[in-house]
Amino acid sequence: MKKSMNLITRRKLFGTTAFASLAFPLATSANKPKQTKTPNLELSKGQTILFQGDSITDAGRNKKQQVANQQLAFGKGYAWMTAAHILVQNPSLNLSIHNRGISGNKVHQLGARWEKDCLSLKPDIISILIGVNDIWHRLNGRYDGTVQTYEKDYDQLLARTQAALPKAKIVICEPFVLKCGAVNDKWFPTFDQYRASAQKVADKYGTIFVPFQSMFDEAVKFAEPSHWAGDGVHPSAHGAALMANFWTQCVLS
Amino acid sequence: MKKSMNLITRRKLFGTTAFASLAFPLATSANKPKQTKTPNLELSKGQTILFQGDSITDAGRNKKQQVANQQLAFGKGYAWMTAAHILVQNPSLNLSIHNRGISGNKVHQLGARWEKDCLSLKPDIISILIGVNDIWHRLNGRYDGTVQTYEKDYDQLLARTQAALPKAKIVICEPFVLKCGAVNDKWFPTFDQYRASAQKVADKYGTIFVPFQSMFDEAVKFAEPSHWAGDGVHPSAHGAALMANFWTQCVLS
Repeated sequence: MKKSMNLITRRKLFGTTAFASLAFPLATSANKPKQTKTPNLELSKGQTILFQGDSITDAGRNKKQQVANQQLAFGKGYAWMTAAHILVQNPSLNLSIHNRGISGNKVHQLGARWEKDCLSLKPDIISILIGVNDIWHRLNGRYDGTVQTYEKDYDQLLARTQAALPKAKIVICEPFVLKCGAVNDKWFPTFDQYRASAQKVADKYGTIFVPFQSMFDEAVKFAEPSHWAGDGVHPSAHGAALMANFWTQCVLS
Repeated sequence: MKKSMNLITRRKLFGTTAFASLAFPLATSANKPKQTKTPNLELSKGQTILFQGDSITDAGRNKKQQVANQQLAFGKGYAWMTAAHILVQNPSLNLSIHNRGISGNKVHQLGARWEKDCLSLKPDIISILIGVNDIWHRLNGRYDGTVQTYEKDYDQLLARTQAALPKAKIVICEPFVLKCGAVNDKWFPTFDQYRASAQKVADKYGTIFVPFQSMFDEAVKFAEPSHWAGDGVHPSAHGAALMANFWTQCVLS
């Protein structure tokens, strides 16, 4: 698991060899995602896939319905859209796809419920999107953790996951924001450090990495930031749809 | 153009060779899409892509803004979501993507504006989704065209398009409905004949074919029909997102 299977080629990112030589305008931060090689995942029969994270993953899911594969249990965010794409396109694989995102969570809160809401499900693929509350709650005075806390907590979570589920494939999604709504200049450049920390632990643990910030940096050329996420943090249906397609391209194409 | 480049393999439909041998539960109608081979498209620099159709394609686009690549000119439907995916993932290709769908259109109304709204744009790729009004307006007494009219009009449109733009790649999207809202038993089995006619002209003119009905037939296993299209005809954001991902997989993967 600790081999460099996380590192995404342009070729893989953009789906076909035709685009292999194109320059993708990645985030201009010094912390931009690396562009090297990844073997993308091939799904197989009976696998379990888990989406974990905060409100962006939660997206209003009905927490009383902890059944796999059903929209009501999944909310209406990128996790649902990604799951729906995967289920519709792989009808004979009998996959079980779960969402266990919870609004407001930071990394340490994932840790507190990891046994119940991750390890006990024995997922074959675990996709994690976490980080925006780790900075946001600090900015608004509700939390005293720093970027170092985020990175340390995230590192521990991954170490624990790989120890418990050594065969599981892990997908780390880059935290992202759109520059509108609640997201103002106070977020920068600190937010870029959180993104860099997510990339760093992805590198260390050899996970797949999905560079959502780079995707949204490109998307704002074609529509206002608020089209993709009204408050700058929570994606609209359009932001979620773009994420679902991008996740699929990065992880499974 | 008349070679059999329209016919979709399971392999291509589902994106990777891993799924090549899976049985996809296609529409049970006798008119189900064929499952043979297609060379999927590779985009190249400077290409123009056009989405054409009715309200499902129109999706509230601002018709005063006939600029390429911008959300306001594109509405909020599958055409926009597909365009956004393509643009974000191919930033260096300098593509020009247009939407010219108009609510309420039947095939003959596309024909009436085809010079202005298709041929003059000289698209390299033309994606057409048309047919639901051809049956719907007949069912509600506003139109006397039959499925034969639909097929004849569609045949003429494609003959004309290939004569004017012999190098253009054409994508025919299967008309679809969800069994809810305005869609009741009166639609069947006639609606299946419209789908079959779309497939037939796709075969005849060697276009790519996107089997949206098959996709939605699978999707209703995971969410209510109304989740995908409240009135049975016009996709929700979730229906549109699924279509955008599926179009991309069928046409470009």
